[in-house]
Amino acid sequence: MIMHFDLDKSIKILERTPAVFKALFYELDANWATINEGPRTWSAYDILGHLIHGEQTDWIPRAEIILCDGYNKTFETFDRFAQEKLSQGKTMEDLLEEFASLRESSLNQLKSWKLSEEDLDKKGVHPDLGEVSLRQLLSTWTVHDLAHINQMSRVMVKHYAKDVGPWKNYIKILKDL
Amino acid sequence: MIMHFDLDKSIKILERTPAVFKALFYELDANWATINEGPRTWSAYDILGHLIHGEQTDWIPRAEIILCDGYNKTFETFDRFAQEKLSQGKTMEDLLEEFASLRESSLNQLKSWKLSEEDLDKKGVHPDLGEVSLRQLLSTWTVHDLAHINQMSRVMVKHYAKDVGPWKNYIKILKDL
Repeated sequence: MIMHFDLDKSIKILERTPAVFKALFYELDANWATINEGPRTWSAYDILGHLIHGEQTDWIPRAEIILCDGYNKTFETFDRFAQEKLSQGKTMEDLLEEFASLRESSLNQLKSWKLSEEDLDKKGVHPDLGEVSLRQLLSTWTVHDLAHINQMSRVMVKHYAKDVGPWKNYIKILKDL
Repeated sequence: MIMHFDLDKSIKILERTPAVFKALFYELDANWATINEGPRTWSAYDILGHLIHGEQTDWIPRAEIILCDGYNKTFETFDRFAQEKLSQGKTMEDLLEEFASLRESSLNQLKSWKLSEEDLDKKGVHPDLGEVSLRQLLSTWTVHDLAHINQMSRVMVKHYAKDVGPWKNYIKILKDL
């Protein structure tokens, strides 16, 4: 069975991501949230800052550009490193709460549009990728959450690479390290 | 910074895994829980059945073999496909509750042992991998949870592979499909 983009099914994932991160990281030992894969790679703390910045400047703002009647349909470039400044001084718990609150607002906005199939076909212009539809933007938003859950779990697995001993060969992420 | 096995830090992850799966899958549209990567690959439903079987026959039973005074230190072979029969007739919600309950019992057992560093060095014999320590078993248990969170997120991402359009190139899991 293959599943394809469906607005309601996507919203159900987007609604749950803050709870998934909270379930894993709220008041967890800080080491688990700050380990990364080496210089210039991301920890769970970095990922969460990145997701927060996405709520503020990426998904809903871009959807608004697609849906509005304006002439300029080109999105602002997204800053993949904005969280380095924006997260400064914040705890993991601060970020978890901030993300949950921003995501809730984003989804309230999204639901309020009551998007039709025709709306989902509307297009904007990505500064690097060119023309993209609202359906593609919302698919990417959903997948982006899951891809970062994938990333943060991979980062955490790697830290026990030596501790698992011979089981290393049974764990795909560790086998090729 | 590199993190290594620590019993308390591992327990904190092991305690949270049932809540992570619940946050994502409890009463979620069943499609998300049953999609897989093709024939003979696992869905989130299959993964959860596998985690349940691990609680019943793998982690704690193997730790008991290591810690007991018995002569035979060889573990039983773990059946990676047992869930195909054991999950029959159960809903995703049944599995989520069953896993949470079994995991809680497993961790109560683990904590009751008040393991010393000396205990963690004790060894058993894996039927394929040979001699392994309790420390390695418990490291693997922790990593195994995270590796399956990694797997289930990857499986879900892949289902929107075509829907994301040109963003496919920005999402590592999808780029090479």
